[in-house]
Amino acid sequence: MGRWEPNARERLAEAALQLYAEQGYERTTVAQIARQAGLTERTFFRHYADKREVLFAGSPLQDLFVTAVAEAPAAAPLPDVLGAGLDAAAAMFAGRHAYALRRQAVVAAHAELRERELIKLAALAAALAGALRGRGEPEPTATLAAEAAVAVFKVGFERWITAADETDMVPLLRELLDELGRITART
Amino acid sequence: MGRWEPNARERLAEAALQLYAEQGYERTTVAQIARQAGLTERTFFRHYADKREVLFAGSPLQDLFVTAVAEAPAAAPLPDVLGAGLDAAAAMFAGRHAYALRRQAVVAAHAELRERELIKLAALAAALAGALRGRGEPEPTATLAAEAAVAVFKVGFERWITAADETDMVPLLRELLDELGRITART
Repeated sequence: MGRWEPNARERLAEAALQLYAEQGYERTTVAQIARQAGLTERTFFRHYADKREVLFAGSPLQDLFVTAVAEAPAAAPLPDVLGAGLDAAAAMFAGRHAYALRRQAVVAAHAELRERELIKLAALAAALAGALRGRGEPEPTATLAAEAAVAVFKVGFERWITAADETDMVPLLRELLDELGRITART
Repeated sequence: MGRWEPNARERLAEAALQLYAEQGYERTTVAQIARQAGLTERTFFRHYADKREVLFAGSPLQDLFVTAVAEAPAAAPLPDVLGAGLDAAAAMFAGRHAYALRRQAVVAAHAELRERELIKLAALAAALAGALRGRGEPEPTATLAAEAAVAVFKVGFERWITAADETDMVPLLRELLDELGRITART
């Protein structure tokens, strides 16, 4: 094994997902993942703490989402600020439908992985609320807006991933944000 | 120990919470909880599967919330339907601030209990979406509205529980529902 390991991180993630799908998450070992990727266990542990982390670590979702919210124009109305964050989150999934679908199948089949996914979403909401407070939004507006954005992302991701064909997640999330406005609008 | 055990369920919950607060959740055993409540372990296990369940089992929150949504007038606009559900959820906390505050302190201090809380909220959202579909709401409206209602409940509960004085949760949740409408409304 040479020291030059191009895309080791991605190769390990791909190998792990393949093995989880083929033989189950529980029965897959780190040694098997490393072998399948043509890498060593040592290399695996340079990139991931354990086999669960392969599915969760290093996603730039929260950073992209939060940064876009923080950096939206100061004068932008709140729905546009949330929309900018949702756009950035959705854009990172472009071309990743097949991978996301396989990952989701593994997560959905294991209670401990579903729990971890919920915790990641709760952390995302907390980070978004912080970014909104940083923009000068008062409470409870900041926290409520953050929860609303995460709700839109959650519902949109679910629809995107279960769609038969790969669709663009960006307009999908924008439509859901508008729909949330209609749902909660006083008639 | 007689066979007549009035309020055994409540006495066990109260004893458990007291011990969790005093000596920690991990260090508390079912035997200690039963003794503190003046009951037997056998009685404990007639009411709860384990010491974690004391904090989660038997809350009527989901039933009350979902039933109120399902039974709101057929012609009611969607925000009013969600409002009816939130009213029912909030009403059950009347007079329970001190208990809820102590329970929350235990949950907040333990990752596994926080995860369990997130799972309960996800189950609540799924049940609400089902009730809304039962009222004829299409998707993604039903799921999005359910997530929005849970977001309002979550933020409102947090505010209610951290308030210095016991306040009425009903108007608090209604205000947050209105605020969510303002947040997501196009300007």
